[in-house]
Amino acid sequence: MIVTGFARDQWYVAAYGHEVGRRQLGRTILGEPILLYRTEDGRAVAMADRCVHRRFPLSEAPSHLVGDQVVCGYHGFTYGPDGVCVAVPAQRRVPRTARLRSYPVVEQDSFVWVWIGDRDPGDTTPPRAPWLAAPGYTTVCGMEPLNARYGLLVDNLLDLSHETYLHGGYIGTPEVAETPITTEVHEEAGVVYVSRHMDDAACPPFYAESTGIRGRITRWQDIEYHPPCLYLLHSRVAPVGSPPPAADGADRHAFHVEVVYAITPSTEGSTYDFWAVARDFALDDERVSDFLRESNRAVVLQDVAALNTLEKVLAGEGEHYQELSVNIDTGGLAARRILARMAGESAARPRSAAP
Amino acid sequence: MIVTGFARDQWYVAAYGHEVGRRQLGRTILGEPILLYRTEDGRAVAMADRCVHRRFPLSEAPSHLVGDQVVCGYHGFTYGPDGVCVAVPAQRRVPRTARLRSYPVVEQDSFVWVWIGDRDPGDTTPPRAPWLAAPGYTTVCGMEPLNARYGLLVDNLLDLSHETYLHGGYIGTPEVAETPITTEVHEEAGVVYVSRHMDDAACPPFYAESTGIRGRITRWQDIEYHPPCLYLLHSRVAPVGSPPPAADGADRHAFHVEVVYAITPSTEGSTYDFWAVARDFALDDERVSDFLRESNRAVVLQDVAALNTLEKVLAGEGEHYQELSVNIDTGGLAARRILARMAGESAARPRSAAP
Amino acid sequence: MIVTGFARDQWYVAAYGHEVGRRQLGRTILGEPILLYRTEDGRAVAMADRCVHRRFPLSEAPSHLVGDQVVCGYHGFTYGPDGVCVAVPAQRRVPRTARLRSYPVVEQDSFVWVWIGDRDPGDTTPPRAPWLAAPGYTTVCGMEPLNARYGLLVDNLLDLSHETYLHGGYIGTPEVAETPITTEVHEEAGVVYVSRHMDDAACPPFYAESTGIRGRITRWQDIEYHPPCLYLLHSRVAPVGSPPPAADGADRHAFHVEVVYAITPSTEGSTYDFWAVARDFALDDERVSDFLRESNRAVVLQDVAALNTLEKVLAGEGEHYQELSVNIDTGGLAARRILARMAGESAARPRSAAP
Repeated sequence: MIVTGFARDQWYVAAYGHEVGRRQLGRTILGEPILLYRTEDGRAVAMADRCVHRRFPLSEAPSHLVGDQVVCGYHGFTYGPDGVCVAVPAQRRVPRTARLRSYPVVEQDSFVWVWIGDRDPGDTTPPRAPWLAAPGYTTVCGMEPLNARYGLLVDNLLDLSHETYLHGGYIGTPEVAETPITTEVHEEAGVVYVSRHMDDAACPPFYAESTGIRGRITRWQDIEYHPPCLYLLHSRVAPVGSPPPAADGADRHAFHVEVVYAITPSTEGSTYDFWAVARDFALDDERVSDFLRESNRAVVLQDVAALNTLEKVLAGEGEHYQELSVNIDTGGLAARRILARMAGESAARPRSAAP
Repeated sequence: MIVTGFARDQWYVAAYGHEVGRRQLGRTILGEPILLYRTEDGRAVAMADRCVHRRFPLSEAPSHLVGDQVVCGYHGFTYGPDGVCVAVPAQRRVPRTARLRSYPVVEQDSFVWVWIGDRDPGDTTPPRAPWLAAPGYTTVCGMEPLNARYGLLVDNLLDLSHETYLHGGYIGTPEVAETPITTEVHEEAGVVYVSRHMDDAACPPFYAESTGIRGRITRWQDIEYHPPCLYLLHSRVAPVGSPPPAADGADRHAFHVEVVYAITPSTEGSTYDFWAVARDFALDDERVSDFLRESNRAVVLQDVAALNTLEKVLAGEGEHYQELSVNIDTGGLAARRILARMAGESAARPRSAAP
Repeated sequence: MIVTGFARDQWYVAAYGHEVGRRQLGRTILGEPILLYRTEDGRAVAMADRCVHRRFPLSEAPSHLVGDQVVCGYHGFTYGPDGVCVAVPAQRRVPRTARLRSYPVVEQDSFVWVWIGDRDPGDTTPPRAPWLAAPGYTTVCGMEPLNARYGLLVDNLLDLSHETYLHGGYIGTPEVAETPITTEVHEEAGVVYVSRHMDDAACPPFYAESTGIRGRITRWQDIEYHPPCLYLLHSRVAPVGSPPPAADGADRHAFHVEVVYAITPSTEGSTYDFWAVARDFALDDERVSDFLRESNRAVVLQDVAALNTLEKVLAGEGEHYQELSVNIDTGGLAARRILARMAGESAARPRSAAP
C-alpha cells in the first residue's frame, strides 16, 4: 500500500530560487500554506500564508509587498520578514500574539528548501544536488503540478522500467524494461540505490539528439533517492565499446546527465514535481538545451497524465486496493518502507499548534 | 424511496457489439471497471480494467492490444483474453496470482451482455430483444451517459405519462397523461407489465413523420420490464378505425415500433442509457431512419437533462426525502420492489474478493 | 469563530420585486428551495420548489405557469398559488396531502421578503429600507451570488476598514482604516450600530465623480445592522468646513447616500449578496446612476472575490481555525453574537417536517 502520511521534520524544496522574488509566491507544502518572497537585500523568507486576523492569504492580491514587509490585502495587517505583525488598522497597539509561523529556509543548488516540522532543524542541512548550479554543467529545469499523492511519483521514479512503455519515443527502449536492476538500501543514512546497467542498448532520441551518438550505447542508470524529497538519477551513456570510467573517476569517453527530481507533497492528493536535467556536454549549445528542456518536460507530462489517472483510480478504490509487486519494485518498496517509518515518527511526536 | 443498491449476479448490457472491437473499451458497471475488446477471431472478451501491478487502467493509452493480448501502458504487464498475465518486465517468472477477473460474455440481439456477480451464471441467459437484429425490422440506436442513479431511469420508463410534459412535440400528446394504465407483475418471473391503450389519440410527430399517418390514431403502449436491465416497449399505432390484430397475431393494418432500453448502472450516481428503436415499416427508407434516430435521441436527451437535475436534487436531500405516489406509479413501484429484492439477495450473499 | 448555523423564523430578502414576474424564479434560502412567481393580478407568491410527486423543480423548464398555476414539467402535477395541488395525471382524485409548503411574503422597499421558519410570523414585519422606493431618492441596485458562508459577508460589511485595502481606487482612502470606530449594540432590539466619522479625508472616486466635490471631505459612515438580513450604511459626505446637520435633521450642505445590503444565506457555503445605492442628489442624472451602478458593482465583485477565496481557505481548515480580533472587529463580533443567539433559538425549537 502506498504511503499517504507525511514525513515532517524534514527539508522540502518549496521553489526554485528564480521563482522567489519581489512578488509573493504561495505554495502549500505538507498541507501548510506558505508564503515565500525575497527581501530587498535578496534573502528568501518563508512564513504562514494566512493573515492572523481573518486568514486572508498573504500571497493573493490585493495583498502586496512594501519594502521587506507584506501587507494583507483585506484589512492591511502588516508583517515583517520574520512573520511578526508590525501594524494593525485603526489602532497603535499590535497584539503580542500577532505573528505568523516562520519557516527555516536554505537556498542551495538552485532550490529554496524549507523545513517543515515542529522540531528545530538544528544543524541538519538539505541533501545536495550540486550539478544544478556548478561550473562544468548546463541545466534545464521546470516544475509540473501533479494531482496525485506523492507516493505515486516516488513509485514512478524508483522503477524506470516504465520508460519503455510510458516514454517510448523519448527515453524508453526495450532494453530498459528487459534489464534487471540491483537495489541497495542504506538503512542508517536512509538512502535507496537502484541501478540498471545496459551494456548494449538502443539509443533513445533523448540521448541521440543531444549527444550526437548514432549507434548503440552502453547506458547506465544509477539512482540515489534521499527520502523524502530528493531523487538523483546519474545517467551515463557512451557508444558501445567505449572504455569504462578510470579508477580515478575520469570518464571522458562518456556523456553524463544528472537528472534531479524534488518530490514535494502539497496536499494528500497533490504534489509539486520539480525536475532538472544537468549535462556535462554541449554546455553552450542552446539547441541542445531547448531540446532537452522540451523532451524532459514532455516525459514529465506523460508521468503527470498517468499518475493523475492512477490517483483518480485509487481515490475511488478506498484504502484496501490490491497490488502485486515484482522484482522491479524492490527499490520502490524500500522507499515506501523508509517513508512510512519517517511518517510514523512524525505522527508519534506531539505537534505544536500552528500559530 | 428509490433503490440505490445494485442487483448482482445478473446479466447487464455493457456495450453494443459494434462498440467492441480491436481497440480497448472501458466501461464501469455496478462500480466495477471492465475492459472490453474483441480478439482477432472476433470474440468479445471482458476482464477487470486494472493492471494487477499498480492498477493502471488497461483501457487507457498508452495501454494497447498486441494480437489477442492487452499490454499495460505503464510497465508492460501483458494479459491474455482470459485475463491471465503472460509477461512481466525484467523477469521470466510470472507470479501465479497475476490474473485479472474475467467476466462471462454473451453477444445477443446486437448487445454485449456481461455477467456481474460472484456466482456462476450457470445456464442462465440474458433476456431477449430479438427485433434489434432480426429480418423484417430496421433499427436505430445509441447510448447516452446519465449522471443519475439508475432507479430514476427505471421510474421514468415505467411511467410514460411524462411523455406529455417532458416530450411534447416529439412523442407526447395529451392522451398519454390522461389515459389510465393497467399494471401486471409476474412475481415469479420477475417481470413488470404496464399497458396504456388509447383508442383515439392525436398522432405525435414521432409517428406522423415516420408512418405518414395524417389523422388520429389508435395507440398502444405495452411495456415489459425485465429487471434489472432490459426494458421493452411494444408500440402499436394505427389509423383510428383500423381492424385490431387478428387472432393469430397478424396485424398488417398497424405500424409496430419496438423501443428497447438497456438500463445499466455504472456507479451509484451514473447510468448507461442504451436505447434502440426497431420498426417493421419503411425498412429501407434512410430518411425515416435518420428521423427516428434524431427524434429518439432528442427524447432521450430530454430525459437525461431531467434526470440529471433530479439526481442533483436528491443527492442534496439525503436519504429521507418525501415522495407522493399515485396510480401512474404502480408499475414503477413494482419495479422498485423487485429491484430491492434482487439487491437485498445480492447483499446477503458473501462476496468474493475481487482479484 | 464565524456563525454557520441559520437563524430561522426570520424574514429574508428572496428577490427584488422586479425579478419576480410571470416566469418562475427559483431561489434556495437557508437551504430551502423556493419557487417565486407573480399571479396574474400581480401578487408575489412563494412555495416549495419541489413537486410532491418525484421532487422535480417547479422553477425549471419544462415546468411552466398556466394562469395562476404552476405545472410540473415532468408529469404535469399542477399547483395553485397557495401550493395546493389541483391536478394529477390520469386520475380525478387529487390526494389530500398533495400540497407544497407555502411561504409568507411581504413586498416592501423594492424587496420581496419571505418568512423562513416553522412558527407563524404573526404581526412581525421585515425591517425597512425606505429610500429604495421613496421620492427624493434615486436608486441603483443588483445582486451578486457569493460562494461563501453568509457570516463572511456580515464580517465584511460590519468592518469597513477593508475599504482602504480591498476597494482602493473606488471607495477606500487611508483615512477609513486609520479612523477608529464607535460601536453600540441594542441588545433588546437586536441592532448593531457602528460609526466612523472622518473630519478631514480624501474624497474617493465613488463620491468625487458622483457629487462633483473636488477637495477634501467630511465623511461619515453610520452603519445599522438588523440581523440577520438587513444592513444599512448611512453615508454622508460634505466638503470640509460645511455646516453640520441642523437640529431638526436638515442637512442641505451634504450629500447623502444610503447603501443597503440584504444578506440572504442560500446554503451553508453560499449567499445572495443584494446591494442597493440610493442617493439624494443628481436624481435624474443617468450618467451618475450608471457610474454608481458600475462602481458599486465593481466593489461588490471585489468583496465576492475576496470572500470566495476566504471560503475556500476556511472550508479547508475545518472547524477550529484561529482568528485574532482587534478593535475594528467590535461590530462584527457583536453581530456574530446576535446571529449565534438567533441560530441557537432556532435550533432549540422543534422543527416541523417539510411537506
